[in-house]
Amino acid sequence: MMSHPSRQGLPETAGGRLPLVEFVEKPGVIDLAWGHPDPDLLAVDELANLAGTTLRRFGPEALTYGAPAGPGPLIEAVVDRLGRTDSRPPRPDEICITGGVSAALEQCAKLLAEPGQVILVEAPTYHFALQILASHPLEICPLPFDSGGLVVETLPDTLARIRASGRKVGFLYTIPNFHNPTGLTLTTERRRALLELAEAEDLLLVEDDVYRELSFDGPAPPSLWSLAPPGRVVRLGSFAKSLAPGLRVGYLTADRPLTRKFSGQPWLHSGGAPSHLPSLLVATCMVEGMYQANVRRLQAAYRQRRAALLESLQAEMPQGTTWTRPAGGYFTWVTLPAGDTRKLLAAVQKAGSGYIPGITFLPRECSEARGPLAEQAPRSFRLAWSRYSPENLRESVRRMGEVLRG
Amino acid sequence: MMSHPSRQGLPETAGGRLPLVEFVEKPGVIDLAWGHPDPDLLAVDELANLAGTTLRRFGPEALTYGAPAGPGPLIEAVVDRLGRTDSRPPRPDEICITGGVSAALEQCAKLLAEPGQVILVEAPTYHFALQILASHPLEICPLPFDSGGLVVETLPDTLARIRASGRKVGFLYTIPNFHNPTGLTLTTERRRALLELAEAEDLLLVEDDVYRELSFDGPAPPSLWSLAPPGRVVRLGSFAKSLAPGLRVGYLTADRPLTRKFSGQPWLHSGGAPSHLPSLLVATCMVEGMYQANVRRLQAAYRQRRAALLESLQAEMPQGTTWTRPAGGYFTWVTLPAGDTRKLLAAVQKAGSGYIPGITFLPRECSEARGPLAEQAPRSFRLAWSRYSPENLRESVRRMGEVLRG
Repeated sequence: MMSHPSRQGLPETAGGRLPLVEFVEKPGVIDLAWGHPDPDLLAVDELANLAGTTLRRFGPEALTYGAPAGPGPLIEAVVDRLGRTDSRPPRPDEICITGGVSAALEQCAKLLAEPGQVILVEAPTYHFALQILASHPLEICPLPFDSGGLVVETLPDTLARIRASGRKVGFLYTIPNFHNPTGLTLTTERRRALLELAEAEDLLLVEDDVYRELSFDGPAPPSLWSLAPPGRVVRLGSFAKSLAPGLRVGYLTADRPLTRKFSGQPWLHSGGAPSHLPSLLVATCMVEGMYQANVRRLQAAYRQRRAALLESLQAEMPQGTTWTRPAGGYFTWVTLPAGDTRKLLAAVQKAGSGYIPGITFLPRECSEARGPLAEQAPRSFRLAWSRYSPENLRESVRRMGEVLRG
Repeated sequence: MMSHPSRQGLPETAGGRLPLVEFVEKPGVIDLAWGHPDPDLLAVDELANLAGTTLRRFGPEALTYGAPAGPGPLIEAVVDRLGRTDSRPPRPDEICITGGVSAALEQCAKLLAEPGQVILVEAPTYHFALQILASHPLEICPLPFDSGGLVVETLPDTLARIRASGRKVGFLYTIPNFHNPTGLTLTTERRRALLELAEAEDLLLVEDDVYRELSFDGPAPPSLWSLAPPGRVVRLGSFAKSLAPGLRVGYLTADRPLTRKFSGQPWLHSGGAPSHLPSLLVATCMVEGMYQANVRRLQAAYRQRRAALLESLQAEMPQGTTWTRPAGGYFTWVTLPAGDTRKLLAAVQKAGSGYIPGITFLPRECSEARGPLAEQAPRSFRLAWSRYSPENLRESVRRMGEVLRG
């Protein structure tokens, strides 16, 4: 059985018990495939106390239909936080609270693109983002990616080719910081070049900024949104990585006409914003300072795990293997000198370890393997340091190395 | 200024403070337009305690990515509850947990209909449902509605006419129990006839069953879903009316291929089910018996409010006015002998009362006013008894009557 982190096709009542969560642990396996948080790093007791505080503080307003753009207290807290962690704070009307980045991207596909339009993506990119986009009547077009992030230089030619064929571009989906699956970060020069091109070509960018708070070596780079003129970027942020994914709370920043597209959706005017109560819980965490302390705690823990993982790769991987040294996030991208990481996976899993093969992160349209990282993808894989202790990370890489060294 | 319960066009920072909730109270106004719960009926203290219990009981599993179909403990609780409140319980794989009926209907429009298809609706029907459907590339076709609910008898002709013109039907959206906006309930005979027709015509039904728990005069009728063969009905349920809307937790029941369409959405496999933590809170409320007690408390409170509202209509409305006597839910539908309730609204609001004009609940395609209730709509309005105490309901109807008696 594959341990690929999609549950599609798996019985929902496997083992007789209904699943409660997405990740199902297999005894004896330290599976570095999953970009999920370590259960031991989730602040259960503090959130249990603050959940009660939130309900008592906001009273019935925490339990009724929320404002469609999200509750004011969280919007104010996000303004304050981004004033500290990004190069400019949004105005309150430049924010919508969302049900997380995945839910927001699902909405982007409906609200920001017309059926038949082309969505530009990095190759490689987040595999579930590819699936979300592909579940809409949109065409996906991969762009080359190298150690400096998206290869911006080829964008004008790609756009010209798409437009010459009579097709239109909906938006470009990019993960500029601590990219999933490679951990790489878009260079400052390319940020500038990308925004200039976007302006010249009238291209909308959807910026997945989910790992902003998990920056280990100093502040995260300014978001594309913060550097761009109004209307050019929709930035998707989240509290999934910095607090807890089960809260299903994120936010987006954009100019007012774009935020109105999101907050004006009729289903939000009917039911109120998604995750209303958890949004107020996040606001309470931020007002009480628990959130800020939690981010520092996670940064320290993940920094240590990154070190453990990269050190064990040095010790255990076959000669000629390379990997990225990310400045934040959850993931590193490992490239073997040769071999097919899809075929090698079964043996690695049998040894009690696991990864996601690089090819998983390429769009289907990418069979021609465009760009340096897409070309390496068949002999590459993604590892997550998020879910396991340094000791377990070392043990998992040891098992993996034993198989891969052959 | 209109007090119509859509916030579209209103500034999001009205009054200088960012809004926290959808409903903004106007001093001195008892506005019966809003189908929102009375803040005094929301179980703040109990939910504050049980939120802590939930987090401590489920630990990190309450805070990580949830199973895409929703967490097992809530699915089990819904199976148990529907075994008591409907004519058959679903199997666990016949349930998906949703972010509420509005979020689920938004997904129905994507998953259950192709662009360009026709969606059949009752005239009148829930105005925000109309807006949700209209935000997709779908055509809306109204069906006649009378005191027995949807006029099923004309359905074959309508279907034949649609199909003869080369169009296809996506689904029929219906609110069979304590219908919004009329409070009326589909008769037993018509339930049977509708299901036979649906089977014969291969028509999919989306059943909005949001008011099931608010049945005041005995058990709610069996859902269409519970009476239908597999694959014929998607029933949308919710905890918004029976517990709290701010939790954003609902469920749907359907056969396995249909529930798979919902739980298989890539954005759920990426982010996990919506409202994961609040879903576990609802499960805790049900396991602890608080939910069942809360439903009985709400039934008693709303039964009393229904009585107060209907009695004051008797005392205050102009001669010749008629209204429905709903067996549950939030709403009654009032029809004046003459007059235009859109034009009368300003004076009613000036007197410190409010309603939603009947015409709001007709699809735009319904200008020809098809069926008895659609024909009455211009001189009708919807009143909600959900938000105010019996005393306030009486006072509001007194003010309204003074204006309407002229």
